[in-house]
Amino acid sequence: MSDQLISAAEADAADPLAVHRNAFALPDGVVYLDGNSLGALPRATVARVHEVVEREWGDGLIRSWNSAHWVDLPRRIGAKIARLIGAKAHEVVCADSTSINLFKALAAALQLQAARPQVSTGGHRVILSEAGNFPTDLYVAQGLAHLLGDRHVLKLAEGELATAIDDSVAVVYLTHVNFRTGAMHDLADLTRRAHDAGALTVWDLAHSAGALPVDLNGAQADFAVGCGYKYLNGGPGAPAFVYVAERHLERLGNERFAQPLAGWFGHRAPFEFVTEFASARTIDSFTVGTPPIIALAALDAGVDTVLAAGVGALRAKSVALTERFIARVEALCQGVTLASPRRAEERGSQVCFTHPAAYAVMQALIERGVIGDFREPDVLRFGFAPLYLRHGDVETAAEVLADVLRSGAWRDERHHRRAAVT
Amino acid sequence: MSDQLISAAEADAADPLAVHRNAFALPDGVVYLDGNSLGALPRATVARVHEVVEREWGDGLIRSWNSAHWVDLPRRIGAKIARLIGAKAHEVVCADSTSINLFKALAAALQLQAARPQVSTGGHRVILSEAGNFPTDLYVAQGLAHLLGDRHVLKLAEGELATAIDDSVAVVYLTHVNFRTGAMHDLADLTRRAHDAGALTVWDLAHSAGALPVDLNGAQADFAVGCGYKYLNGGPGAPAFVYVAERHLERLGNERFAQPLAGWFGHRAPFEFVTEFASARTIDSFTVGTPPIIALAALDAGVDTVLAAGVGALRAKSVALTERFIARVEALCQGVTLASPRRAEERGSQVCFTHPAAYAVMQALIERGVIGDFREPDVLRFGFAPLYLRHGDVETAAEVLADVLRSGAWRDERHHRRAAVT
Repeated sequence: MSDQLISAAEADAADPLAVHRNAFALPDGVVYLDGNSLGALPRATVARVHEVVEREWGDGLIRSWNSAHWVDLPRRIGAKIARLIGAKAHEVVCADSTSINLFKALAAALQLQAARPQVSTGGHRVILSEAGNFPTDLYVAQGLAHLLGDRHVLKLAEGELATAIDDSVAVVYLTHVNFRTGAMHDLADLTRRAHDAGALTVWDLAHSAGALPVDLNGAQADFAVGCGYKYLNGGPGAPAFVYVAERHLERLGNERFAQPLAGWFGHRAPFEFVTEFASARTIDSFTVGTPPIIALAALDAGVDTVLAAGVGALRAKSVALTERFIARVEALCQGVTLASPRRAEERGSQVCFTHPAAYAVMQALIERGVIGDFREPDVLRFGFAPLYLRHGDVETAAEVLADVLRSGAWRDERHHRRAAVT
Repeated sequence: MSDQLISAAEADAADPLAVHRNAFALPDGVVYLDGNSLGALPRATVARVHEVVEREWGDGLIRSWNSAHWVDLPRRIGAKIARLIGAKAHEVVCADSTSINLFKALAAALQLQAARPQVSTGGHRVILSEAGNFPTDLYVAQGLAHLLGDRHVLKLAEGELATAIDDSVAVVYLTHVNFRTGAMHDLADLTRRAHDAGALTVWDLAHSAGALPVDLNGAQADFAVGCGYKYLNGGPGAPAFVYVAERHLERLGNERFAQPLAGWFGHRAPFEFVTEFASARTIDSFTVGTPPIIALAALDAGVDTVLAAGVGALRAKSVALTERFIARVEALCQGVTLASPRRAEERGSQVCFTHPAAYAVMQALIERGVIGDFREPDVLRFGFAPLYLRHGDVETAAEVLADVLRSGAWRDERHHRRAAVT
């Protein structure tokens, strides 16, 4: 396959997104293949955070809730993200963490599902997920099922999911692109199967939003959540987002609680300070406490970097980068095995290889300025954020990996010491 | 009473905390009596946020989770806050919003209470709160009770609480200092009454932490939460904190879920990526998703401003400021009625007066640079953050209020237009 590649230099010269790299403050000497764990810093974020801290907070003080429109920020950024995921502006809001939003979305989906007339005998008690789903997704579902008592989480292998969607299922609860392998589910097909079986869907777009086009409305998806600090470049621990299909919002707003985390910002009239909760009939009902303004401002600047490039162009470049990486690694490297789908249309914006000493190999790579991720038990994970990566970076990464493997540099004892966060 | 006051100038000259005002970037021409809604910007925060954004995120990228110790930040700030509220370092962690932490704490308290051997006939099904509690506190309890089905929220008037604590009560769920009136509960006495009745306690310290000494361990308090953006000066929508008494932590860690919001950061071994949740046996079990690093860094700098002054000295100054304000307003102003407790030992760091046109009066004050809060239905609320307020500011505020009332300036039509956030 590498024979078919134009050179990296030619590809970079022809790259319509090349100019976007200048929007990021990347350190010298680093090939950053971990934008799927923590997106790089947009230069505009520095000024925006400074403005929010010094002018809006420092000078404006409490007045900035109105004068700087802080109160609208969760919806304003939500409306921007909506454009990336095929949603309407009023179907998305930014709030809390991905984990907390999973709890809200799953609880709301279970509530809606339970309120439907039961036309089948399967009971719709199962939260159907994937054994390889990201742990926090599974944990949140387990916590909610434990609290409710009469639901349980069924974790199946990827290949068993489609045929397991029957009338025992209440909610199909999946991550669109697998965090470890990059394998991508057919969101539209699984959503259709869920609806045919009388179930609803909750999609986690953590590894999709900002990296590839998603069409939630086109798929008639019910609920979704996503992460602000990966491809959206919102900063470490950035606020997350939650999507609720328009057709569900008003109905949920007629329930006493659209979702169980009832805070003042989810109230129909938060500043009337009444003592009984009444859900907003809008996406606001999926917000809870006071919004985190500094963090939201950073996320806003991050989302702007994605909108400026356009998610279609980003996907095209991402495919080219991952194709090149697979081809070059397989041509140059011994001892690693591709663990991501080989077909580009079946994977997200990342490529994984397994190696028996993956942890140490990754430490040796990081020491040489090629930053990827290790994932238990034996996965070398490389994320390709097309906004700021060059084809030349991909070549460099493959060459450094080849050198680390060939030289046995990873065998050094210091590369085997585990850090607190891996 | 005003006869007994030394002059504001003399009081400011003798103020041992006067120097701390320099640690804040306050705008000119403003008397800021709303530090209980949003604390002022510490100068150190500007540099700290810049460092976290440019150096730790921009240059360090994903490596900063280890190299900049991001992963420890929630506990490190928690340990600092512990010193302000009479807790042990490992009993407090920063995470999420106050509302979300209320949900976790209340759910954990209900779980612990239900696991006790029942020695009485009252059933312990009631979450006992105050009708005048902050709305989000009530909403969170209502949402959780609705989800659980077999608990309910009883809201009583302040004076009815103590005698209502009997064996029907599962959890006494109160805010220490009332958000509207500033009235302060006797935390130790109500906690003792709760324990005597076989109930547990959840205290909201939103208007206490950083303003006055709290002794959670001394009172044997069970759970508490608090807000980062008021007296702790953590910035708009700063992360909140949660306290769990040491004696409850290990026991909760033996439950499958210490609390129902089960995310990867609350897992015993988050980076092993196992598929079944197991609660950490530490305060970590009260964290959920990825911690918000930029927001936490700002909170850290804010908490440092309080630690530098010491909460005992802050309380002494706060009492002097509020005493002066009450005396001067009552001497100078017509048409307002004190709505806070007159005895300093019964109130927090704020003073409220009622006026039939409180909203418009507050708008007229704000236009004149005296920034307080309006609270429904008729409350003028003035917060006294002793870190950066001067006795002279108190004089000015009272004089401007007197002028607004005497002149009828508040009658102007523009002062009656409601903003989005009040």
